Amino acid sequence: MINTSSAKNAFKKVTGKAQKVLHRSLDQHVKLAVTGLSGSGKTAFITALVKHLTTQAEHKNLPFFDVMREQRHIASKIVPQEALKVPTFEYQNALNALFPLEGGVPKWPASTERINTLRLAIKYQSNTGLRGHFSPQSTLYLDIIDYPGEWLLDLPMLEQSYHQWCNQQYPLLLQMPRVKTSHAFLDALEQLDLNTPVDESLLAHISQLYQQMLVGLKKDTKLAMLQPGRMLMPGDLQGAPLLLFFPVNINNDTVVEGSNLAHLIKRFNAYVKEVVKPFYNEHFKHFDRQIVLVDVLSTLNEGHETLKEQSSVINQLLAHFSYGESGFFKRLFKPNIDKILFAANKSDHISAKHHKDLALLLDSLVHEQSNQLKFDGVQIETMAMSSIAATQPRQVTDKGQTLDCIYGKPLNEQDWLTYLPPQPPNRMLNMNEWPAQGFEFLSFSPMPTPDKQLKHIRLDHVMQYLLGDKLS
Amino acid sequence: MINTSSAKNAFKKVTGKAQKVLHRSLDQHVKLAVTGLSGSGKTAFITALVKHLTTQAEHKNLPFFDVMREQRHIASKIVPQEALKVPTFEYQNALNALFPLEGGVPKWPASTERINTLRLAIKYQSNTGLRGHFSPQSTLYLDIIDYPGEWLLDLPMLEQSYHQWCNQQYPLLLQMPRVKTSHAFLDALEQLDLNTPVDESLLAHISQLYQQMLVGLKKDTKLAMLQPGRMLMPGDLQGAPLLLFFPVNINNDTVVEGSNLAHLIKRFNAYVKEVVKPFYNEHFKHFDRQIVLVDVLSTLNEGHETLKEQSSVINQLLAHFSYGESGFFKRLFKPNIDKILFAANKSDHISAKHHKDLALLLDSLVHEQSNQLKFDGVQIETMAMSSIAATQPRQVTDKGQTLDCIYGKPLNEQDWLTYLPPQPPNRMLNMNEWPAQGFEFLSFSPMPTPDKQLKHIRLDHVMQYLLGDKLS
Repeated sequence: MINTSSAKNAFKKVTGKAQKVLHRSLDQHVKLAVTGLSGSGKTAFITALVKHLTTQAEHKNLPFFDVMREQRHIASKIVPQEALKVPTFEYQNALNALFPLEGGVPKWPASTERINTLRLAIKYQSNTGLRGHFSPQSTLYLDIIDYPGEWLLDLPMLEQSYHQWCNQQYPLLLQMPRVKTSHAFLDALEQLDLNTPVDESLLAHISQLYQQMLVGLKKDTKLAMLQPGRMLMPGDLQGAPLLLFFPVNINNDTVVEGSNLAHLIKRFNAYVKEVVKPFYNEHFKHFDRQIVLVDVLSTLNEGHETLKEQSSVINQLLAHFSYGESGFFKRLFKPNIDKILFAANKSDHISAKHHKDLALLLDSLVHEQSNQLKFDGVQIETMAMSSIAATQPRQVTDKGQTLDCIYGKPLNEQDWLTYLPPQPPNRMLNMNEWPAQGFEFLSFSPMPTPDKQLKHIRLDHVMQYLLGDKLS
Repeated sequence: MINTSSAKNAFKKVTGKAQKVLHRSLDQHVKLAVTGLSGSGKTAFITALVKHLTTQAEHKNLPFFDVMREQRHIASKIVPQEALKVPTFEYQNALNALFPLEGGVPKWPASTERINTLRLAIKYQSNTGLRGHFSPQSTLYLDIIDYPGEWLLDLPMLEQSYHQWCNQQYPLLLQMPRVKTSHAFLDALEQLDLNTPVDESLLAHISQLYQQMLVGLKKDTKLAMLQPGRMLMPGDLQGAPLLLFFPVNINNDTVVEGSNLAHLIKRFNAYVKEVVKPFYNEHFKHFDRQIVLVDVLSTLNEGHETLKEQSSVINQLLAHFSYGESGFFKRLFKPNIDKILFAANKSDHISAKHHKDLALLLDSLVHEQSNQLKFDGVQIETMAMSSIAATQPRQVTDKGQTLDCIYGKPLNEQDWLTYLPPQPPNRMLNMNEWPAQGFEFLSFSPMPTPDKQLKHIRLDHVMQYLLGDKLS
């Protein structure tokens, strides 16, 4: 009985594999990873991507997406995902928020803070070549994987010791803007003797204060380097010792066995081994394409330090995407990612004539250290775009001057507004160049859409960059 | 550089192993698993166990625990746990609930619904033999692992196909007491054609109704067989397809590829493989001792069907603990468990003279099928006990008759009460024997304890059974 069923299973496995190989040879699979810090618009981006590829898939709507312009797109639909352990992206809930029942007010879909996924089957007419010959209708299976940007930012920890991590993180707590909220944590840290036998409840108490500080920074600022990232959304790991650590001021290298310091090191190492590494092994190294959404305008609102930190984090990340001989990633994971897009989202919140400034600014954030970096085989691009346009352009004439305003409903307000947005800088400003009054870009609620059609800015360019070559 | 550090690591590993072996040969380790359905008193049990072994470790307090009676216990304390990925049992929070600041009302500690752990080091004087000779002071490291009873109840799914599971679960939904709350789910199920191409949103919708029903049953009843158990506390798996399945009425064996049925089968199999199996591999098979807490009195309140289901589930479980040649566990996991204790908790809620009835009743639930079972090498015991006594015995004379009452503060009430509890049956009753008015045992709030000393009933017997031989 057991033997028969084993044999059957073995047979199934073999045919399964053969089918898979066959399947792969005709159809194609792309795993598109979508990330960004919370509030960067991941949920809106995925919702728009799916909506425009399914019910709004027309060449007029997506003129710069070749498969649409050339009218080779046949149809796309959501199909069952392969990864059964990963929560499904809640597309219908997102649509329900954007298109409420009559009388309802459209809202931005609730953000998800865990990994989730959705599979699209894109059926299209091949352009040329072998695929066109053998299979006039090809299908591209697109796995969209949405994961918290914080998980990406844990990446550098893979290369660090606890000492190195402390030397990077601890000084930040004494500087602006963190110093504004780090008091409680730093005060508690004073009570901790690193060399005395471990006091687990003290470590737990200080960890809690550190976590509160991180959660507050995530909520109130656009700071990018909040580590360990899983502390911001611990899920099933809440209360596990490997999340109960924090940076300290280390003066020397001796580690007393069984001491508080020894336990902090143990926990840091366990976090890297049991949380960060599995994410890269199970997910990251299987990604083919990566889009990183950046809410540059909100970061400008936050001030110079925050923009500088975002730039530094992005550049730190870029170093990790490097495929060079000594590439860290290559040694550790052999990842597949061959195209990365940094997208300044929400460009509808400024005037159309300033979109270029926004793209240039993001470019200057990303390319700051490009001379030192080698991106062998990886393409990197920056764009300003808007997954879901929440405003309309309005030209206003004032004292004979034509002003490029936008019209929309500011977030959390009742009234609609015609407003002249400030111009973003087109490159990273230094401290002296920063305007004294700072920047103040507004945020907007989504527009009512009686026709249930979403509007976008340059989403078709994004699609072409990320998927165009796979749909040729 | 890399080679040096690899060599160092390898060296560390080897010495680490050697130290571990040495450590094990002098000291001992026991992994005690604590489980029970929610409300069975797991948190109170662990809190009491730790409290009595640390600050209340006296022979007068624990006279039937040999190491205490023989005054060989030196001291016990909480030490750092090895499993850094498992949340720590919140002992201090539990104490804070039981011993509030002045003016506060003592409460039962909040129940935790995930796995958590705590390590105790128990230092004691060895009695005799080699250990006594080489090391006059020995240490027993006790890992207490608290996990939801529902996870244990998923165990039988490991042996089932989706068809078998449906044949067991679906009929239950049409019977009392589930039929009272299964309407919405069953109505929705009518819309589902098993053989048509998969409709993922319909499967998600029906799963949601099934989950709501299970969560309601868990909250309002003491029903034991609620599967899949992880649906009751999904944590990071919320929204993952492998949790989106439910039992259906299957009439035939044909499975159409890509159909709703094919996807339900796929999800059931993924749940077993990715959720149930890892729990047993990572945790269960490493347990040495197991205590299952059963709230028999509340089950009696629920009625005959519920008690019958609890009995059937316990017996189903016992079959899985069997170590016989054909033992399912032996084939799959080679577990270590050599002693299991079923404890009827909260025996302080009835009169002392009826404790024996309670123990006999639990015994009849557990031993119903003992003739068919072989527990090679596994000891099974039943006891009536109370981890934290919440009442005091009071004798009341009424019309010349002495009544064995109890005095306490009923849960969620303001006033203290002297009350004559009903007598529990001393064996499983059949439907005809069940009293027409049913049973109504009260629940009580914890007693105020100005001396911060917990009282127990037979916790020392429980300790002796579970740990006595390891502390000889």
